[in-house]
Amino acid sequence: MTPSILEKIKSIVGTKNYSDSIEDKICYSYDGTPILNTKPEAIVFPENEEQISQLMHLANQEKFAIVPRGAGTGLSGGSVPTENSIVLVMTKWKNIIEIDEANLTALVEPGVITAQLQKEVEKRNLFYPPDPGSMNVCTIGGNVAENAGGLRGLKYGVTKNYLLGLEMVLPNGELLKTGGKNMKDVAGYNLRDFIVGSEGTLGVFTKILLKLVPKPTDSVTMLAYFDKLIDSAKAVSDIVANRITPCMIEFLDNTTINCVEEYTKIGLPINSEAILLIEVDGRGSSVKEDAETVLNILKKNNASNVQSTSDEAESIILKTARRSAFSALARRRPTTILEDITVPRSELAIMIEKVQEASKKYDVMIGNFGHAGDGNLHPTCLTDERDNNEINKAHLAIDFIFNEAIKLGGTITGEHGIGLAKKNYLEQVAGIPGIEFMKKIKAAIDPNNILNPDKIFSMKPRCEGSLPNKQNQIGEFTHSHNH
Amino acid sequence: MTPSILEKIKSIVGTKNYSDSIEDKICYSYDGTPILNTKPEAIVFPENEEQISQLMHLANQEKFAIVPRGAGTGLSGGSVPTENSIVLVMTKWKNIIEIDEANLTALVEPGVITAQLQKEVEKRNLFYPPDPGSMNVCTIGGNVAENAGGLRGLKYGVTKNYLLGLEMVLPNGELLKTGGKNMKDVAGYNLRDFIVGSEGTLGVFTKILLKLVPKPTDSVTMLAYFDKLIDSAKAVSDIVANRITPCMIEFLDNTTINCVEEYTKIGLPINSEAILLIEVDGRGSSVKEDAETVLNILKKNNASNVQSTSDEAESIILKTARRSAFSALARRRPTTILEDITVPRSELAIMIEKVQEASKKYDVMIGNFGHAGDGNLHPTCLTDERDNNEINKAHLAIDFIFNEAIKLGGTITGEHGIGLAKKNYLEQVAGIPGIEFMKKIKAAIDPNNILNPDKIFSMKPRCEGSLPNKQNQIGEFTHSHNH
Repeated sequence: MTPSILEKIKSIVGTKNYSDSIEDKICYSYDGTPILNTKPEAIVFPENEEQISQLMHLANQEKFAIVPRGAGTGLSGGSVPTENSIVLVMTKWKNIIEIDEANLTALVEPGVITAQLQKEVEKRNLFYPPDPGSMNVCTIGGNVAENAGGLRGLKYGVTKNYLLGLEMVLPNGELLKTGGKNMKDVAGYNLRDFIVGSEGTLGVFTKILLKLVPKPTDSVTMLAYFDKLIDSAKAVSDIVANRITPCMIEFLDNTTINCVEEYTKIGLPINSEAILLIEVDGRGSSVKEDAETVLNILKKNNASNVQSTSDEAESIILKTARRSAFSALARRRPTTILEDITVPRSELAIMIEKVQEASKKYDVMIGNFGHAGDGNLHPTCLTDERDNNEINKAHLAIDFIFNEAIKLGGTITGEHGIGLAKKNYLEQVAGIPGIEFMKKIKAAIDPNNILNPDKIFSMKPRCEGSLPNKQNQIGEFTHSHNH
Repeated sequence: MTPSILEKIKSIVGTKNYSDSIEDKICYSYDGTPILNTKPEAIVFPENEEQISQLMHLANQEKFAIVPRGAGTGLSGGSVPTENSIVLVMTKWKNIIEIDEANLTALVEPGVITAQLQKEVEKRNLFYPPDPGSMNVCTIGGNVAENAGGLRGLKYGVTKNYLLGLEMVLPNGELLKTGGKNMKDVAGYNLRDFIVGSEGTLGVFTKILLKLVPKPTDSVTMLAYFDKLIDSAKAVSDIVANRITPCMIEFLDNTTINCVEEYTKIGLPINSEAILLIEVDGRGSSVKEDAETVLNILKKNNASNVQSTSDEAESIILKTARRSAFSALARRRPTTILEDITVPRSELAIMIEKVQEASKKYDVMIGNFGHAGDGNLHPTCLTDERDNNEINKAHLAIDFIFNEAIKLGGTITGEHGIGLAKKNYLEQVAGIPGIEFMKKIKAAIDPNNILNPDKIFSMKPRCEGSLPNKQNQIGEFTHSHNH
């Protein structure tokens, strides 16, 4: 990128909103993903839609890339710069523009921090449920780009379920508005739901309209220890079979329990094979009824200890183990690789065993925890990227885990996105026709491939040496019927 | 279309799966939409994915159109044939392939009738909530194509909220598989949610994987009469303000009440300005608590009579008025034009008044009913398409209603789709950048425009005489901020 192009960029956003210092380049060269980093050519903080639009025009003209960024907490490299790119930071766009209590909507700018929005709406007895682990730091824009989930996803769903409308600047510089305050709208293609989870490759959000729900008035939080992991998995199945939908069912394995206890010293049972954190919530007396049923199921499945509370402050304490899992694991070794596989719920117990198998087979320390209720686990490799032998073993273990998840009908990412980190596995999950469909859309919307290029998939053609496999590699739902 | 092309089509599907008789052409020339009809060149009933794929190849080669069709109950012309087209009927694909109780999923073929699936899963204490008015006839494939809703949408959402996976034959003949039994999956673009509501323009479904939920064990159904319409609208707002989410809040106006009473003779109050049908459901005692709160709200808002039941058989009787609204209205005049506008919930009372205004202003009989809880109304014009004067007035009334809905931040279709019937209004709701985005995708996926062409939007360029309006015609969420 020539100095004259950088000058043009600077003149679009203004000097105070531009940096190409080496310190800033280093800071913005990485996100929350271990190992991956590339320095951008510059970092910009646009002030309005017009500036973003002009940057898109310039990028198309001069063929550089634009990498959008919120708080940079992503875990798959989605905001890691690419070669010849500028980082476009949206964190200053942090107004909560409107909370509409009659229509149960919140209109926000993309830089609003998730937890900040949650606090604001809870003052009004409303609720914005998606609670990713980084919620005290991450931004709504990033949440929409990645379709972020969280602990409450089991009952309340994920970001996609709360997105009502978007305004965004497209790669061609136009401002697209889609959706609105209507609870239902089928006018034209469902652009809004398509753009959720598109990982910054189709546009830069400038306004986000979210749905809110009534705040639950009652909840019961339970923490259960299990000597045997298989009992905890059976407890999860039994809860689902009883047709109860808890707000959350979270799981921690023995490695994670030990790391958390080292960190927090809250008296966790370091010999238990598993801990389950369960919360039921809602309004009225059925909450207590459901909690009673869950407690019986936990005891029936040999829970060695169950703590239970309907007090909010105590509930926060019970959740500490789970909420500090990642931080606790990250203390152990210099490099923490957090993965995000999801399997059909029925395969959860098998997947947990496969993670243990990977750990033994490749001699890698792996703490496993996550959203047991919806089959989404976070096997976390604790390693050291500076040691080639270690990091190779970690990658082999992760590869094994991914392949086992896919064999079970699962996916390589439930919440964190493909980004850069998981591109190699996308074909096994999405299939060639699926990826071709995605590439056609990307090519149509961003013909010069200037917006967050090479994230999710590469637009470059395959190397001649590896012919595309025309057979459908991905698992069928079932065999064909004739009619 | 030449005889030789028709021969090729016949040889792909086999003689028993092919017809070009005049009787069949007439039968398949229309769907549930009044007025619109075009005879196809032929009607085919493909037996498997391979035949559909071959038809796509032939269509691309010989440049004819393929119009997919389920039960043909659509209300916007989505399965009305276009010029030089064949109708591809999927009603024979009616197997429920698998109900997975561990993962709460149902795998079905697209021709399965919605109510049939519901009965099957309810035997297992499970629930597939989307309940479009045509559910005893319509097919799951059609539901997915239109993102069908229903009475239970207020609490349970619509078809999109239940779609986990799809297999479909693309316009290029390839078989795409997307999604699966995972509760969460962010691997690549969200194709599945994009294809919901794409009205048969992007592919032909061959398998559909749906999410199920636990069946509610308790419910209370209430029917309330209101002398004054404004009181019923206030009751709806108060219920929402009390943070209760009923399963449904349905509304009938005086015209509809009278038509239904004529038809059913069940003793409805023909002088009431409005009836509300409300159901609360769930598990446990909070259902009764919520019902109590709702009853108090209804009385506080001057409901002249409230019937209430928790018995299933009685509940069906209370729902009769609402479930027979469309059929009752359709008896009155030769032509029944059912519209589907949605406005933000806060604008409901105003919109109801605007419909009344349209009826008076254009001297058209309009029965209004619908999903008051989510702002989705079905103003229904009763007219006679054979009388030019009448039908012109009806179209003027509908145009007025659409424009008023859009002014209130609403949309022209909450459930029925754009199809052919509402293409002229799409730009006002989706905006030019939005429609351009959609067209780019359609062009990328179906470059020869062979699959259900001219539905939702036209791929033909605008006439020279009317220049595109570059300004954003659609309402802003709000004004820009500088940062």
